[in-house]
Amino acid sequence: MRIAVDAVGGDFYPQNPVEGALAAVKEREDLTVVLLGPEELVKPELEKHDYDTSRVLFQHAPDIIDMHDSPSKAVKTKQNSSIVVGLGMHKKGFVDGFISAGNTGALLAASTFVLGKLEGVSRPTIASVFPTAKGFRMLVDAGANLEVRPEFLYQFGVMGKIYAENILNVPNARVGLLNVGEEEEKGTDILKEAHQLLKSIPDFAGNVEGRDILPCNADVFVCDGLIGNITLKFGESIATSLQYMIGAAIKKNQLNDEQAKMVAGVIKQALSPFDYQLVGGVPFLGVNGVSLVGHGSSSALAIKNMIFAAMKCVEKDVNAQIVTALQ
Amino acid sequence: MRIAVDAVGGDFYPQNPVEGALAAVKEREDLTVVLLGPEELVKPELEKHDYDTSRVLFQHAPDIIDMHDSPSKAVKTKQNSSIVVGLGMHKKGFVDGFISAGNTGALLAASTFVLGKLEGVSRPTIASVFPTAKGFRMLVDAGANLEVRPEFLYQFGVMGKIYAENILNVPNARVGLLNVGEEEEKGTDILKEAHQLLKSIPDFAGNVEGRDILPCNADVFVCDGLIGNITLKFGESIATSLQYMIGAAIKKNQLNDEQAKMVAGVIKQALSPFDYQLVGGVPFLGVNGVSLVGHGSSSALAIKNMIFAAMKCVEKDVNAQIVTALQ
Repeated sequence: MRIAVDAVGGDFYPQNPVEGALAAVKEREDLTVVLLGPEELVKPELEKHDYDTSRVLFQHAPDIIDMHDSPSKAVKTKQNSSIVVGLGMHKKGFVDGFISAGNTGALLAASTFVLGKLEGVSRPTIASVFPTAKGFRMLVDAGANLEVRPEFLYQFGVMGKIYAENILNVPNARVGLLNVGEEEEKGTDILKEAHQLLKSIPDFAGNVEGRDILPCNADVFVCDGLIGNITLKFGESIATSLQYMIGAAIKKNQLNDEQAKMVAGVIKQALSPFDYQLVGGVPFLGVNGVSLVGHGSSSALAIKNMIFAAMKCVEKDVNAQIVTALQ
Repeated sequence: MRIAVDAVGGDFYPQNPVEGALAAVKEREDLTVVLLGPEELVKPELEKHDYDTSRVLFQHAPDIIDMHDSPSKAVKTKQNSSIVVGLGMHKKGFVDGFISAGNTGALLAASTFVLGKLEGVSRPTIASVFPTAKGFRMLVDAGANLEVRPEFLYQFGVMGKIYAENILNVPNARVGLLNVGEEEEKGTDILKEAHQLLKSIPDFAGNVEGRDILPCNADVFVCDGLIGNITLKFGESIATSLQYMIGAAIKKNQLNDEQAKMVAGVIKQALSPFDYQLVGGVPFLGVNGVSLVGHGSSSALAIKNMIFAAMKCVEKDVNAQIVTALQ
């Protein structure tokens, strides 16, 4: 299997993408990676390592789309960027999937534009992978569609369930519609209509509330991109804020070094399910291909795990399952 | 000053409302409370205590609106409930404010219907008080208005700022618009228009994101009621989920009893800013009166603090400030 890797995406390129790709190749014998980026940046990084030249390929892509570029403009004006070239290779069938830790907006726009939509899908979605007390689950949409129609929410539920079951290994994933109350007559007209459509999905958990996310009272939380984006970023901020608050409490309680170290160890372990490196990245679902995006701060480990998630999408043919489910 | 207290609101009535009201009267000599509810329920609870009959009054109100009642229906059919009678007394000027730990929807409906709206206010709002790493701040709206117009969001910002400054004692409270990105062209058309209106507020912090809430990067977070309600409930679930995760980590690390106790103590202290009892309740802002609602599980301490918050609203004349600001 071949996966294209954006070597100039994220805050720590080219080091982390290159190291992550090489680690993935070492672990999986059936994998070939194609690293994309400006030759003068990526090649010297690659040359720092020993690697199998038959399974680590390089494709020159001189343009760089950075975090501050306007998504739609960048995709049009930077046709020779790693993102546009990499997705183009995927479209032509040279690679089976594409991953990047770069500009999410540009990646979504390019993935939709270059790969096109899957049959039956109204709007591709950023299907984020969200930490709960019981492990990672789905929060869909996480910012691709700020305004939605009921059928979009229905499709988010269908796609999120397939991803949760196949890639996150959650059997019979329960789909919940984020709302202000459990009763089915709660919420806006859009939510009420979406609720009726979602009823046809197996394992539909009905309406769920904000308090149901962390205890994992559903496995796929469906919402519009405005709610999803705010919730996702709020969730990401918990670990840091908490560490700040616990640090202050340690000081106030005047713990000695040994005690403070023990408390810090317990907290670190307790918060380990929130470690985004483990899932690596989140997929754009509904596009006609396999495209994943990672956090800007992705480590080499996160990049490696994102490559593995892309491989799993190919192996399980997630897209064929989505097309069948939406028929 | 006279505050009416719903003696049959919340999960622990009449005990907690009665105890909270009596504690408040003990602490504040200028306070008289009027307890409302069915005589056969409230009087026996009152008689368990020694109290000053000239400053603790009772008003019989035989109907009870419970948590499962439909708000608009209950307000119409239960005219002799503590909620409708208490707000009616407030409307007529017999008391200066009303507090309850009862059905939020019914309280909002009754407050709006009985008290009416303040001049210049389009929609009354549930202005929730939200814990951050630096103390309690405002999240407005928390569920009263699931769909909004830009001017509603502007008014939420104005009202929230006045409450934060006067009742939460946050000087020069910064108002932020919850959005998917910081740039002012981000978000839906409604958010873009609201951003332009909010610019006229002093200390406008611009757009803020989900990750800005817990670190307290603004003091008033403005959003529609759907986002606010989901965010509020998500936030409320953090402490419990975390305790669950930390409990699991303590077991896994095989701490002895003494060590476990120390860790639990630090966590408890770290999470103490999240203790809702301290703020007692949240106000309905934009109604022509002082009306606050508390958590269903409100303790006597929470009830007492809610009474004090209502008194402060009267003393600072929050409503006059709102009318002036919106002129």
